[in-house]
Amino acid sequence: MLTNGDIDAIAGLLHLREGQPLAIHATRRVLAALEANPVFDVLARDLVRRVPLELGGTVELGRGLAVEAFAVPGKVALYLEDGVPEIGAETEDTVGLRVASADGAFFFVPSCAGLTPALAARLAGAELVLFDGTVYHDDEMIRTGAGSKPGRRMGHMSVAGPDGSLAAFADLAVTRKVYVHVNNTNPILLDDAPERAAVTAAGWEVARDGLEIALPCSH
Amino acid sequence: MLTNGDIDAIAGLLHLREGQPLAIHATRRVLAALEANPVFDVLARDLVRRVPLELGGTVELGRGLAVEAFAVPGKVALYLEDGVPEIGAETEDTVGLRVASADGAFFFVPSCAGLTPALAARLAGAELVLFDGTVYHDDEMIRTGAGSKPGRRMGHMSVAGPDGSLAAFADLAVTRKVYVHVNNTNPILLDDAPERAAVTAAGWEVARDGLEIALPCSH
Repeated sequence: MLTNGDIDAIAGLLHLREGQPLAIHATRRVLAALEANPVFDVLARDLVRRVPLELGGTVELGRGLAVEAFAVPGKVALYLEDGVPEIGAETEDTVGLRVASADGAFFFVPSCAGLTPALAARLAGAELVLFDGTVYHDDEMIRTGAGSKPGRRMGHMSVAGPDGSLAAFADLAVTRKVYVHVNNTNPILLDDAPERAAVTAAGWEVARDGLEIALPCSH
Repeated sequence: MLTNGDIDAIAGLLHLREGQPLAIHATRRVLAALEANPVFDVLARDLVRRVPLELGGTVELGRGLAVEAFAVPGKVALYLEDGVPEIGAETEDTVGLRVASADGAFFFVPSCAGLTPALAARLAGAELVLFDGTVYHDDEMIRTGAGSKPGRRMGHMSVAGPDGSLAAFADLAVTRKVYVHVNNTNPILLDDAPERAAVTAAGWEVARDGLEIALPCSH
């Protein structure tokens, strides 16, 4: 399930490569990005199906897993930018997923440029949300010298600030909230950072390699 | 320095991404493969130069490093195959490198479909050669169920056998020989495998993560 066409969402396909049967589910926008890059033909067409993901529909993945995709505010993939892109458009460039089984359901939203009222309503009361934790401050990449773009320009809402995810989730009554897609400039990665303490105090966890979560959550 | 256009040679470019100035040196054949894939535009053109690598010429990389590229028997990248490719052609699809500094020189040949007399003459007497150790036996991928193709079909000569690299290097008087690009089906990766003992007995080492080699070698 590809939630967008950016490098961090699609480059892993190249590690799967030959001879491994699988299905790639992605919106037509994202599948078109794959089609435009012959390098992905290393995934043999007779073994790797490319399945268009319909927004609002539900995909049954077997073993009782059902996935629903929905558009979230985002942007076109960086390498597909043609001039300054529209940020925050709810196109098929960026989607979130609701993954459900008999044991529960969770939301996976690794890229999100802003929490609209409709998205907030969708996530409210959820048992588990894995959410975009790319940057803590919008200008973090610039201040640390790691890049020239604000987080929002890259399609990511910040953790902090009045428009940040901490504030946006404060009243959503989500049982378990986990930041994912955390950039290496984001201080919440550091156990002893005050920013980590701030997100912990707000009820958030920070994903780590090897993290396992069982549903239902007993948080 | 890209020695070919296959996934394992080029996919790492996607991990470098934005904002990191560098130069990509590759033959026009390999640069054309990059050009054909917009995903590599994530490497900003104003920061990442793409420099055509001329076979037989020498590229000065600074700090006293000079690199010479030469064609070796190979094949077109898998994802560029159009029908059954010619194997062993000495085109610009696959190159080896000679890297030299004031302290010495070494050869880097991670993909090679066969050791021609000309290539053997070039490598003879070298201080250090890092060489294609993809498969031990030509039919190894098939026998282990890992794939459907012989090593040679993938552009790699085997380690063992009458046409293998062990035999081909036996009389080349290379001071230090190291297998690189070793596939996970190749038993030389296992410390206690008889195949590891065989290559060790023939004076070869097997590269490992974190390997450091200083020139001149005091092997």
